[in-house]
Amino acid sequence: MKIAILPGDGIGTEIIAEAVKVLKSLDLKFEMETADVGGAAYAASGHPLPEATLNLAKASDAVLFGAVGDYKYDNLERALRPEQAILGLRKALGLFANFRPAICYEQLTHASSLKPELVAGLDILIIRELTGDIYFGQPRGRRTAADGHFPGSDEAFDTMRYSRPEIERIAHVAFQAAQKRSKRVLSVDKANVLETFQFWRDVVTDVHKEYPDVALEHMYVDNAAMQLVKAPKNIDVLVTGNMFGDILSDEAAMLTGSIGMLPSASLNSKKQGLYEPSHGSAPDIAGKGIANPLATILSAAMMLRYSLEQPEAAARIENAVKKVLASGLRTSDIYSEGAHSAGTRKVGTAEMGDAVVAAL
Amino acid sequence: MKIAILPGDGIGTEIIAEAVKVLKSLDLKFEMETADVGGAAYAASGHPLPEATLNLAKASDAVLFGAVGDYKYDNLERALRPEQAILGLRKALGLFANFRPAICYEQLTHASSLKPELVAGLDILIIRELTGDIYFGQPRGRRTAADGHFPGSDEAFDTMRYSRPEIERIAHVAFQAAQKRSKRVLSVDKANVLETFQFWRDVVTDVHKEYPDVALEHMYVDNAAMQLVKAPKNIDVLVTGNMFGDILSDEAAMLTGSIGMLPSASLNSKKQGLYEPSHGSAPDIAGKGIANPLATILSAAMMLRYSLEQPEAAARIENAVKKVLASGLRTSDIYSEGAHSAGTRKVGTAEMGDAVVAAL
Ligand SMILES: [Mg+2]
Ligand SMILES: [Mg+2]
Repeated sequence: MKIAILPGDGIGTEIIAEAVKVLKSLDLKFEMETADVGGAAYAASGHPLPEATLNLAKASDAVLFGAVGDYKYDNLERALRPEQAILGLRKALGLFANFRPAICYEQLTHASSLKPELVAGLDILIIRELTGDIYFGQPRGRRTAADGHFPGSDEAFDTMRYSRPEIERIAHVAFQAAQKRSKRVLSVDKANVLETFQFWRDVVTDVHKEYPDVALEHMYVDNAAMQLVKAPKNIDVLVTGNMFGDILSDEAAMLTGSIGMLPSASLNSKKQGLYEPSHGSAPDIAGKGIANPLATILSAAMMLRYSLEQPEAAARIENAVKKVLASGLRTSDIYSEGAHSAGTRKVGTAEMGDAVVAAL
Repeated sequence: MKIAILPGDGIGTEIIAEAVKVLKSLDLKFEMETADVGGAAYAASGHPLPEATLNLAKASDAVLFGAVGDYKYDNLERALRPEQAILGLRKALGLFANFRPAICYEQLTHASSLKPELVAGLDILIIRELTGDIYFGQPRGRRTAADGHFPGSDEAFDTMRYSRPEIERIAHVAFQAAQKRSKRVLSVDKANVLETFQFWRDVVTDVHKEYPDVALEHMYVDNAAMQLVKAPKNIDVLVTGNMFGDILSDEAAMLTGSIGMLPSASLNSKKQGLYEPSHGSAPDIAGKGIANPLATILSAAMMLRYSLEQPEAAARIENAVKKVLASGLRTSDIYSEGAHSAGTRKVGTAEMGDAVVAAL
């Protein structure tokens, strides 16, 4: 098994180092190879996703990715900006299935906006289609309106579209993920208004026939946005399109109150995947040794579960993270002053990583 | 000033009666004329929006609408279903500006999913464009994919589009509404990904030049879905397109925990408007005298403010509702057992309406 390690920019190097430390402490054999990506790659070789990095990613079973982006690259032309590295990797590897867990850890429940009883133990897996929908649909642009409310005026337009195989493959991913969890899938659409999402509902319903052990429910996106606030623990695996998934996965992440804790994954049909924390590169705290490595460590756990077929090792890491939180260790982003500081202690990036290794 | 009174189905008749009672208690002169709509109109004359009702609405300054829909009409063909009445009225009157307030009343704060300090005093006005965007954009349908990830496969598609005048008119509505409130507008888009919403941002920015007294901020829709959970009280007037508004207005409504309390309005450029509670026709409790009339009474207050140029009368009603809540009266939907029942008393629809009249 080969893992491409792409630390990137900002706090990327520090948080990836802790995840690598954890992976090396497992009694498993991986080949790990590190390469530049993002601004660091641009600085070293003139492109955020150099050929060598792309080839390494393609040749690996999984990519463990830190974060990219830094103020100093903000004025580069769009094609050379650090963020292009992720878009390029997604495209080259065909990573169409985005996994966005929203987990609320017992010790961090107080950080949520929601009442503790509504989020304690929250564990939602949002599966977002990542390469289709209106975010990529052609044609798009500006033109003179030929019809509509104001014919002859300037207008802009985009195209929402999904083909049957695109919906089928993300539906399979969702049903298979549900088989490893609660065996329930909530498919979110807007079938009452949009042709694309009536088709989505039809195709998901067809694919469901192959998974009689999984219960399928459908919900409109506006209702889903409400239910996430009202009763988020009723939701287990939620599958939806690219745009609705963009909105709902961020809403769900914020419910936890600790987005610095959340991992993510993007997979293709060969189960190759890119694993990265949901948070960004935080250049303002880079190099200070205070960044929270847990989302990256939990991304490594997702990698073991979804790309490397090592579910026990994944669970070992996840349990170790829970133990470390229970022991009271907190990086500054999850440290609370006042009542919730009782029994907790502020630690840096490396000490947190070491504690996870010790708790394995 | 002429008001069309359209009670509709289910609890519509009961809740409208209380709003009319309140309107009649004001020392203002309106002409009010009642007509059938929805299932009741279908039952009486074969169509959910009869010609006479439509003509009455067109000839009125405002429409006060109860609710439509009942199980017994579920099997009618789509064009004859009660819900078509609202779509027909929106279209015939050109009601492009949907106002969806999300207000959290002090006495009902405990009903929210959010911690009390985050929602106490919440008062957001979401302004949703209602007649354009991908919900109406043509072309749409199913076809064989000519390109994309799976050329040759079946696909479905929709068209997102906004013309300059459509964006301009909703932007004017938002800036003018903000002038009557905190003088801040948050425009929500997805300019980083969608051509339509880059154009939206450009046009809103242009229109803003005419409102130097109003502060304008832009936010991506996924971030807005997060901020509504994290710090909803930072938002005052939020303006956005039809689809994003559909999702965010429901999320915001749910933050209050009392959606039975929320009014709504839909306006055209002549400030003609349709005013209705955000909740539905609740056929299961119709005729029992237990429905909450406050959302309808508050819709009548919005009507006074936005269509009838009677802001003082609007404020009188809104203050009366606050007083009635403070006095402890609760219909069953907002009554809480346990700790929050102290000092409260469960009342029916008519007693609640009478109490508002008494508190005017
Ligand atoms: Mg997002
Ligand atoms: Mg809605």
